[in-house]
Amino acid sequence: MAKKREVASANLQNLYRIFTVPEAPDSTLGAIDQAISDDVSGFLQTHIVALERSLEEIEADFFVSAIPEEPTFVSEYTDFVKEKLVAQSVHTAAPGFVGHMTSALPYFMLPLSRIMTALNQNLVKVETSKAFTPLERQVLAMLHRLIYQGDEPFYQSWMHNSLHALGAFCSGGTIANVTALWVARNRLLAPIGSFKGVAQEGLVRGMQHLGCDGLAVLVSRRGHYSLGKAADLLGIGRDNLVMIETDAHNRIDLQHLRDSSRRLQDANIRPLALVGVAGTTETGNIDPLAAMADFALELGCHFHVDAAWGGPTLFSQRHRHLLAGIERADSVTIDAHKQLYVPMGAGMVLFKDPTALSAIEHHAAYILRHGSKDLGSHTLEGSRPGKALLVHAGLSIIGRKGYELLIDLGIERARVFAGMIQEHADFELTSVPELNILTYRYCPQAIRQALANSSAAVSCRINLLLDQVNQLMQKIQREAGKTFVSRTRLRVAAYAGKELTVFRVVLANPLTTEAILAEVLAEQCSIAQQPEVQELLLQIDELCRARAAV
Amino acid sequence: MAKKREVASANLQNLYRIFTVPEAPDSTLGAIDQAISDDVSGFLQTHIVALERSLEEIEADFFVSAIPEEPTFVSEYTDFVKEKLVAQSVHTAAPGFVGHMTSALPYFMLPLSRIMTALNQNLVKVETSKAFTPLERQVLAMLHRLIYQGDEPFYQSWMHNSLHALGAFCSGGTIANVTALWVARNRLLAPIGSFKGVAQEGLVRGMQHLGCDGLAVLVSRRGHYSLGKAADLLGIGRDNLVMIETDAHNRIDLQHLRDSSRRLQDANIRPLALVGVAGTTETGNIDPLAAMADFALELGCHFHVDAAWGGPTLFSQRHRHLLAGIERADSVTIDAHKQLYVPMGAGMVLFKDPTALSAIEHHAAYILRHGSKDLGSHTLEGSRPGKALLVHAGLSIIGRKGYELLIDLGIERARVFAGMIQEHADFELTSVPELNILTYRYCPQAIRQALANSSAAVSCRINLLLDQVNQLMQKIQREAGKTFVSRTRLRVAAYAGKELTVFRVVLANPLTTEAILAEVLAEQCSIAQQPEVQELLLQIDELCRARAAV
Repeated sequence: MAKKREVASANLQNLYRIFTVPEAPDSTLGAIDQAISDDVSGFLQTHIVALERSLEEIEADFFVSAIPEEPTFVSEYTDFVKEKLVAQSVHTAAPGFVGHMTSALPYFMLPLSRIMTALNQNLVKVETSKAFTPLERQVLAMLHRLIYQGDEPFYQSWMHNSLHALGAFCSGGTIANVTALWVARNRLLAPIGSFKGVAQEGLVRGMQHLGCDGLAVLVSRRGHYSLGKAADLLGIGRDNLVMIETDAHNRIDLQHLRDSSRRLQDANIRPLALVGVAGTTETGNIDPLAAMADFALELGCHFHVDAAWGGPTLFSQRHRHLLAGIERADSVTIDAHKQLYVPMGAGMVLFKDPTALSAIEHHAAYILRHGSKDLGSHTLEGSRPGKALLVHAGLSIIGRKGYELLIDLGIERARVFAGMIQEHADFELTSVPELNILTYRYCPQAIRQALANSSAAVSCRINLLLDQVNQLMQKIQREAGKTFVSRTRLRVAAYAGKELTVFRVVLANPLTTEAILAEVLAEQCSIAQQPEVQELLLQIDELCRARAAV
Repeated sequence: MAKKREVASANLQNLYRIFTVPEAPDSTLGAIDQAISDDVSGFLQTHIVALERSLEEIEADFFVSAIPEEPTFVSEYTDFVKEKLVAQSVHTAAPGFVGHMTSALPYFMLPLSRIMTALNQNLVKVETSKAFTPLERQVLAMLHRLIYQGDEPFYQSWMHNSLHALGAFCSGGTIANVTALWVARNRLLAPIGSFKGVAQEGLVRGMQHLGCDGLAVLVSRRGHYSLGKAADLLGIGRDNLVMIETDAHNRIDLQHLRDSSRRLQDANIRPLALVGVAGTTETGNIDPLAAMADFALELGCHFHVDAAWGGPTLFSQRHRHLLAGIERADSVTIDAHKQLYVPMGAGMVLFKDPTALSAIEHHAAYILRHGSKDLGSHTLEGSRPGKALLVHAGLSIIGRKGYELLIDLGIERARVFAGMIQEHADFELTSVPELNILTYRYCPQAIRQALANSSAAVSCRINLLLDQVNQLMQKIQREAGKTFVSRTRLRVAAYAGKELTVFRVVLANPLTTEAILAEVLAEQCSIAQQPEVQELLLQIDELCRARAAV
């Protein structure tokens, strides 16, 4: 018994140590920590090895479902992290990793993230965040001002107003888009007369009150998939997320939008919101926002702009005109973990009307009391970390002009890369970059000529094979781990709007040089020589020759 | 012109430096970084000063709404962070900060958080997370097993199944609860025959299909406020979040639950879900989960358990019986940033049925393709950081037995503190702790006697004044910054279920000693001597004496 008590007490002492004694600098974890703070890109380069291990092989290291009974030494665990996790991570910061929206981070983000983590503030309420609450309110005002350009008195009176918030910090663009449409729905179905509002009475009563058979959200085919989730979640239904055709430049087709709206009217379905995209996820194109603002006014519906990607284009004097009309949006989504270069997990939604978020306001007895400045009364999420610090740091340290440089650089680089693709005999540009995103595919000149001269049926068969070629090439390139592009399916105007498999490139990493982009193409050309790819290309060749023989 | 180009090029060089050159160890930011990694609690103690500055004063430092034009030196910005932000933060890790659910963090969480931040993986898809995806799947399996105790073959076949996920990582408990009810709604209104399901057709069609006038979610009065948001968001309406009365121990009253269900049936409203609470936010009590599981079966509805706080009680051999019945829940919410001691921003929802999340499954052309193991196809959120690493680290390094010690310690400490309160002449315990949360109020013995002997009207007036006393005391104590308890409004059985203002204490920080708890009470006693409080107490005294004079 005494022995048992002794063991328990020893365990307790060990437990206290975990909370009170820092890792020694010469411990494994201390050493990694130091190595990262000394030279993160060096550390990542050395440790994220391009192992050609399949996911199935990696899974073997993550197959135990039982929670370990006994504690493990930190040093032992750190070895696991190094060998099994870091070594098998994706080097998202590598300049040759141009396939997705995750880029290198400015160095200062790391120590500031550590400060944020150590402070462990909770932004849901002032009692657990104090200065972080005014800080977050300030950041929301800064972004609001970037978009809506209100005047000084406007921000002085609204920024720290305890009854309102100019927007909401979120874990990402999805929650931002959901919040925007949630607000739109609750405002359309606000309390009036004996109707207590959709928030209180629910959607069925709301529809009865409105006297219509459904609500619709209109967005182009290139709208982000989070809008489908929002339509589902909010009870609107995915069928009522109306995907409008796009023009040759992946922008919403206004005539088609008009036609669809008429059809909705005939079906007694009320347009809840029109969503403009400022930087489509797959091609980086921007909808005609000003014309859409006009049309939303005509429809009498909420106008939301999903600028998760393209929002920071507003920093650029040269390019901000591309987003003209965004200042007329009722709400705008911007992701900080994209082109504000903040670590993963930081999105925002801003509202033109500083009282808009009242539509989703909520309270609780132990926090978020009426009149408190707690930000949690106006957010979809509850407890949240102090990520606003990192956005604030970016805006302060990089400044408007610094972000402008980054934006201009990316757009310029995309133009250069588009030129390289167009000049290359083996590639075909499938979307002209408007911002810093473009798509292309492997399609040698001879095949392009054959496609131009073939019957629709043959051309279709060739394209199906090319889809396989491009899919396979992307997979081989990804697994080799030297450079990385992503892939998607895209309707391409040059092929009568047929959906093709294409490579997708996002050029946001300032360290991506033209030489690296040339390497991406060179690597793809060499992959095309691999037997599996050649086999498919031979089949295409046969189709082309059969056509020539006719 | 040449000059202009030179400036631009210099700016560009500076910008590259931000991404490539680490902060020097002797820079301000480097020094803070080092200080935190050497001794975080020392750093926090020294830098989070208990300034009696009001929020309004602090706001003066956060009043500029314009984004800075020019870049700022990191060192300059760091001074701002130190003086204006850190110095005015809340020391959530302090052992005397027992008012909310944020506690001290184990040391290893900090360097591991830095590794996570530096890797900047995005868990939405394997292409940007690789080993982190199997890691997250493993952590979900571990938590699933903790709750549902499936056998080895079960986890071997489901853990890494590309078509499914055993649960979802979320930014917190709110998104977890929303996800659970979203799944419940979509399963109740699943596609069948010509009905394509609520996800596709929306809630109005869903209700027509089901032939009922509404959906309801049933939970005790002590349910978390996120359920109200969920009811609003999902189109159910807050009126249909039926708050059931509780018994004297803040647990759902089963008779009242039965009565309410009958009333819903009469109104043709279908129960969507019954929600059990395992550790209420305000009092830490646990609903009778097994009996609720029975009743949910009887109702034929989804049974969700919100164990955001109390879930880790399952680690304790001694106390896990308190949650008996949780293994029968269709879904369970657990927050890792609460009693798993992970930094802010990590929640989870687990589903008993490994195919349940199919009800909200979604895909996109560029990611989340059918058959991929991308976790993003089964989460409400999109891009997400690799927080699973920190949960995995906690489970591995602390181990089941370590967490058991922490849980047992907290529960024991709450019992001890409850005893201290009950023995103290000036305080009154208002909820007996079942876990590590309790409530009490300042109410000296003489007043308690007067309350017991007064008419209902006088007693009511005394209690209203006591509410003011306790509210004021909590405010003074918070602003003084030495120790911190929170406050809430609670129906207290001893006062015929009247709602009173009470102090709320959460005892999860292992560094909180009995001596510190004694200090909390001592500080409150001395606050009670302050003139503003005395003034209110005098008014109470007069009421008591008036009664005595009658």
